[in-house]
Amino acid sequence: MANDSIKIGVIGGGQLARMMVPPAIHLGLRISVLAEAAGMSAARAADAVGDYRDPETVYAFAETVDVITFDHEHVPGEILRELEARGKQVHPRPDALQFAQDKILMREKLEELGVPVPAWAKVADEAALQNFIDAHGGRAVVKTARGGYDGKGVRVVSEAAEVRDWFTALAEDARGGFLLVEELVDFVRELSQLVARRPSGEIRTWPVVETIQRDGVCAEVLAPAPVQHASTLDEAAEIGLKVAEGTGVTGVLAVEMFETRDGRVLVNELAMRPHNSGHFSIEGSVTSQFENHIRAVADLPLGDTSMTRPAAVMVNVLGGPSEGTMLARYQQALAEHPAAKVHSYDKQSRPGRKVGHVTVTGADLETVRAAAVAAAAVFE
Amino acid sequence: MANDSIKIGVIGGGQLARMMVPPAIHLGLRISVLAEAAGMSAARAADAVGDYRDPETVYAFAETVDVITFDHEHVPGEILRELEARGKQVHPRPDALQFAQDKILMREKLEELGVPVPAWAKVADEAALQNFIDAHGGRAVVKTARGGYDGKGVRVVSEAAEVRDWFTALAEDARGGFLLVEELVDFVRELSQLVARRPSGEIRTWPVVETIQRDGVCAEVLAPAPVQHASTLDEAAEIGLKVAEGTGVTGVLAVEMFETRDGRVLVNELAMRPHNSGHFSIEGSVTSQFENHIRAVADLPLGDTSMTRPAAVMVNVLGGPSEGTMLARYQQALAEHPAAKVHSYDKQSRPGRKVGHVTVTGADLETVRAAAVAAAAVFE
Repeated sequence: MANDSIKIGVIGGGQLARMMVPPAIHLGLRISVLAEAAGMSAARAADAVGDYRDPETVYAFAETVDVITFDHEHVPGEILRELEARGKQVHPRPDALQFAQDKILMREKLEELGVPVPAWAKVADEAALQNFIDAHGGRAVVKTARGGYDGKGVRVVSEAAEVRDWFTALAEDARGGFLLVEELVDFVRELSQLVARRPSGEIRTWPVVETIQRDGVCAEVLAPAPVQHASTLDEAAEIGLKVAEGTGVTGVLAVEMFETRDGRVLVNELAMRPHNSGHFSIEGSVTSQFENHIRAVADLPLGDTSMTRPAAVMVNVLGGPSEGTMLARYQQALAEHPAAKVHSYDKQSRPGRKVGHVTVTGADLETVRAAAVAAAAVFE
Repeated sequence: MANDSIKIGVIGGGQLARMMVPPAIHLGLRISVLAEAAGMSAARAADAVGDYRDPETVYAFAETVDVITFDHEHVPGEILRELEARGKQVHPRPDALQFAQDKILMREKLEELGVPVPAWAKVADEAALQNFIDAHGGRAVVKTARGGYDGKGVRVVSEAAEVRDWFTALAEDARGGFLLVEELVDFVRELSQLVARRPSGEIRTWPVVETIQRDGVCAEVLAPAPVQHASTLDEAAEIGLKVAEGTGVTGVLAVEMFETRDGRVLVNELAMRPHNSGHFSIEGSVTSQFENHIRAVADLPLGDTSMTRPAAVMVNVLGGPSEGTMLARYQQALAEHPAAKVHSYDKQSRPGRKVGHVTVTGADLETVRAAAVAAAAVFE
């Protein structure tokens, strides 16, 4: 890379790409985005529009930048390996990213690393699935190995026939394949550990946070996670480091975990990019997940991840006002909640859609949470 | 303005325009910049390039946005009045902006408002100037009424002949005019009060800060200003409010003041835009000057201006590394100063040029200042 400019290319034009732009502006790094369609959330930075599944589109975009990173995990690994073969920096590297792209590879890797996970199996047919269900209390969680997010590609079932459509689709796929089935974990809450890791191996972690999901979608994040058993948070942090080092991730990694009723911590999902559980860090941390992600992928030293104030709570705006964008409610929301940091992804409202979020920071988690919930509620 | 989008147009492509972009992205407001030249600091947002002194260029740019604001005060008032006549929102309005464009109008307005200023006069020839100098201790500060900034257009003189070139230039200008002469104030330090004001009249102020100048250019800002006499800071804050209301400014106003050895506060300069003395607010305040500026010009409610931590210190990077941009020193600077927030304006180094700044926040002003000075020094 030239000494007087580093240009980062982000594949995917959603809000994660959008939120990488402000720290790039402040640091004087150049950033451009390959968006799936015109008018997406990161349009401010979108210099190119095209299909990330088309190799030539991706190769042409890569020619215009120094390093490639991602807004999502859906770019096919073979395209990314070809980019590396052509000498392009790609972060996370495809050998790491596969563990976030394929949930079965992820489960196998986590077991290899000795990281606690729910009981699981890969199943190729209804009989195998039914055996697992019967052996684990009569209900289980079934997931497609690829393509799921925000509760999509996930079903809780008691009969194998409830995912017959997924088995049919697998049978029609020339690559064949398996579904992932997991025990239904009896958890008391969910935790997330964010980690940033550079190609050089330098690592920084943010405090473990508690995430509150509704209908399989992140609704609130409490940072730091309230202490119930100190050892649980320490264990969650250790798991985050172990996964970052074991997978060789570069950029930001989010490790989502269950805290079980009997005090165990089990890894649920991995994401190798900035993650909804880290949005609090824009105001809540000295260095946000977005800034450390771009520092990491540009192989620059990572910033301090301390909290700026003792507590930060982020509340997602899901759906948004009945028409238009969040802007339709700004007069009320900003007047009533001057201390709330309001983020709009400039998306049209749609039931359940993540159209923005609100973060409040302060001295006390309960006060801050009430303020963030109230401010976000103006947009519902 | 439509309910689902507000597009802000910024005239001028410098670092102030550049730093308006991140809060616009977070709030989901659209922003575009009319830059003087391609490749300027705000290039990320520069949708147009052209001369702001050319009326048709400005009118065409204004057609593409909902509201016009500024990176500098140099757009001719007659162009802005025509924009208003055409029904365009312009903030600050030309009737307010004139007090930041013309230092003689500014002095007259401040006197009318009863705001303390240094002894001054407008002088049309060397004889009048020499009379003022002789009556004020044999030395005085002479300023051109228009076009000065960062020490340019300002000379400390003891003989009127030292500004003969300026009088000659005035004589050649068909509009004629005056130079401004002021007593040389015996000050102990300089203060700045930032104020944001909406068209509706809503006002918010940040804490009064101390600014430290070197060679007429801002070098450091201490926020909040250390208390020497509490009444002095209160008076500075009152002056800020009086000037904001008295001039009818919309957007951010910076009032730069001298604190004199005998305990008075005198207004030195006004700026009607985000100002170098407010850069600390990006990390140091719940709502930065850049966010409240765009909220104000879009007539949205203003955000909380409280400090996020007890102290913030900003240190300018003046000149930059001997070649290239600040990026050439990022490996060292970011590794040694992980808690420093480094801002590069993506400008090539040049002696004395403002190419970026560093801000550190924390519990204690002295510690924070030492850290910010050390981090900025890596770029010298």
